[in-house]
Amino acid sequence: MKKASEEKLQLLSTDEARLRGEKVAEGMRKLSLDAVLVNDNANLFYLTGRVFCGYVVVLADGSMHYLVKRPVHLEGEGIIFIRKPEEMAPVIESLVGKEGALGFMGDETSWSFSERLRGILPGFRTANASAVLRQARSVKTTAELAMMTLSGRLQTEVYRHVPGLYREGMTDIELQIEIERVLRLKGCLGIFRTSGDGLELFMGNVLTGENADSPSPYDFAMGGRGMDPSLPVGADGTLIRPSQPVMVDMNGNFNGYMTDMTRCYIAGPVPEEVGRAHELSRSICRAVADAARPGTEAKRLYEIAIEMVGDAGMEDYFMGHRQHAGFVGHGIGITVNEPPVLAPRSRDIMMAGHTIAVEPKFVIPGFGAIGIENTYVVEAEGPARCITLCPEEIISLI
Amino acid sequence: MKKASEEKLQLLSTDEARLRGEKVAEGMRKLSLDAVLVNDNANLFYLTGRVFCGYVVVLADGSMHYLVKRPVHLEGEGIIFIRKPEEMAPVIESLVGKEGALGFMGDETSWSFSERLRGILPGFRTANASAVLRQARSVKTTAELAMMTLSGRLQTEVYRHVPGLYREGMTDIELQIEIERVLRLKGCLGIFRTSGDGLELFMGNVLTGENADSPSPYDFAMGGRGMDPSLPVGADGTLIRPSQPVMVDMNGNFNGYMTDMTRCYIAGPVPEEVGRAHELSRSICRAVADAARPGTEAKRLYEIAIEMVGDAGMEDYFMGHRQHAGFVGHGIGITVNEPPVLAPRSRDIMMAGHTIAVEPKFVIPGFGAIGIENTYVVEAEGPARCITLCPEEIISLI
Repeated sequence: MKKASEEKLQLLSTDEARLRGEKVAEGMRKLSLDAVLVNDNANLFYLTGRVFCGYVVVLADGSMHYLVKRPVHLEGEGIIFIRKPEEMAPVIESLVGKEGALGFMGDETSWSFSERLRGILPGFRTANASAVLRQARSVKTTAELAMMTLSGRLQTEVYRHVPGLYREGMTDIELQIEIERVLRLKGCLGIFRTSGDGLELFMGNVLTGENADSPSPYDFAMGGRGMDPSLPVGADGTLIRPSQPVMVDMNGNFNGYMTDMTRCYIAGPVPEEVGRAHELSRSICRAVADAARPGTEAKRLYEIAIEMVGDAGMEDYFMGHRQHAGFVGHGIGITVNEPPVLAPRSRDIMMAGHTIAVEPKFVIPGFGAIGIENTYVVEAEGPARCITLCPEEIISLI
Repeated sequence: MKKASEEKLQLLSTDEARLRGEKVAEGMRKLSLDAVLVNDNANLFYLTGRVFCGYVVVLADGSMHYLVKRPVHLEGEGIIFIRKPEEMAPVIESLVGKEGALGFMGDETSWSFSERLRGILPGFRTANASAVLRQARSVKTTAELAMMTLSGRLQTEVYRHVPGLYREGMTDIELQIEIERVLRLKGCLGIFRTSGDGLELFMGNVLTGENADSPSPYDFAMGGRGMDPSLPVGADGTLIRPSQPVMVDMNGNFNGYMTDMTRCYIAGPVPEEVGRAHELSRSICRAVADAARPGTEAKRLYEIAIEMVGDAGMEDYFMGHRQHAGFVGHGIGITVNEPPVLAPRSRDIMMAGHTIAVEPKFVIPGFGAIGIENTYVVEAEGPARCITLCPEEIISLI
């Protein structure tokens, strides 16, 4: 099993670190920022290839400086150890002077901590620079795509095991737990990193039967009642019945970069309306992948989906039934919800290197949830390329 | 398996909801607040017994009003459905007037969202009221203690299974995955809710051998390198050896309320120094539990621990070896790190109804981590009462 390097802070290659620093610097120039202070785990991981407790300061030339609280044994150029945030002030002033424009991660860090940071650097004009990192991260580098491709391959291997995990009389949660175990044995790290407040999920979502139509408070494509009102999403102990598909949408985080893939399984013959909706989902994925080229508006990809749904007369079941999700796909990478967003009012424009999860799903009363989800890489030319390569058909559990 | 109620928003009994509202109102009076706006999942769960997408407004008389975005089928008195935060303004103005003092959850919500909330209600003086909820929550009600007691009982049942899960030649992560599976089958929800920025962990921490001495960036009692630099904590694939104890500190969240329990296992005879440190850990737990009475300073509990460690000449190994954690225990409940904090500079005073995890642990080079952790309820009279009742001895795996 892979070992994390114990000593070097910066785990990216020199070229890769420079590339990412320059991508951030490009966004900083648009906001006329002299420095950006990064302190959330997702962005620290993006800039260094590891999570640590501390800060990365990115300067306008793309160079990075590291203020580290823990662990104290990390080594490398540009590291300064600090014990509390207040010790950052002289360091930042030595890098950019006593005043200037400082970006901070306003969307990722709490109000109270952001205010403390601002108080520590009173000479600086501050600006929420979360979008700078978000945009830089949305276009993946070759190295990042390799990590996502690996996650997609491992996730696919696990999804192929699912029929072997099923036993007659199982509930949704019992099947989910067996999938969790195989994922973990394959190296899945388990956690989802999310952007923004309030998203919670443990390891993924397995839905079958009427539970697929239980509305959830969370902003995921699908709902489910969950096992407890403290985490009201996903499997709720419903028995898996031969006529009802089982939708499996489990964690694909094997290295800090995630893929998102959904497949459906069934323990009996496929009911006709279920099969038809599933094929429509596959067709929408193909159409969206074909249209997802540099320059396309992300909202156009949503429109393509909704037009196909309308032509099939399936609006009532698309992205939920009692409650509908307002998107058909989302960017993915270090976090599970990144730009671009494939939604009606999205302002995102597709770019080569975007990685998107496309999930046109249906909830059909009496049967449950059906459809697929794939993760695609937007290419410089041609259709987006799928990196979640498990067969797309409804897979027999028996 | 338990089903979440599908329709009623407020899942607490009328008396319990009133009690919690009044506890919050008591803290509000000290800050002269007219209303508090709660929007993070942990506090929404505290006030209603469920997670939903929206807000609870607590007024100075302790009454609660619910602004709900999702799910839209929730019912009950005092619910108003909104689609975006801006729609809160007329509701709050109708409750408390056009100006006043409004508390918000500054420690839990992002800077950008907090600023948006403040912008929506420009007539109000705003104050970070996170501590009001934190203090209210730190003293558990009878109903909350019943939920924690249940979590402790279920967690104990799983810990008793651990020897049956061990096979010779296993690594730490392989054993952990089998424990995860049994926890989940027993109803463990898997997620940890944490307070503050940056804590990440998947399902718990299993440590053995030298890996116990790998420093981690996270503010947990113990470290471990982890399986990947994107989540550098816990098991790292180390082979379990007969001379090295295995420390198991896994998730005890079965109903939204957590217990925290650590036990140690070994696949051979207990080395003398390991056994001595383990007995010291048990003695410290007993001494801290005996001293944890209403009115005691939380820092005094830390001092009791450190004095016992000093008497035994074990300072170099206490709460880590290459890197030391600066506490010996912490409050626990809906989140894994609540007041009171048992640390040298803590200002917390113990109160009846506090629930604390006490975890005097040692890292002994060459052997690994050793010691126990229990969750205790501070009683009105007498020593704190343990609710994690697995036998405390080092348990044989073979």
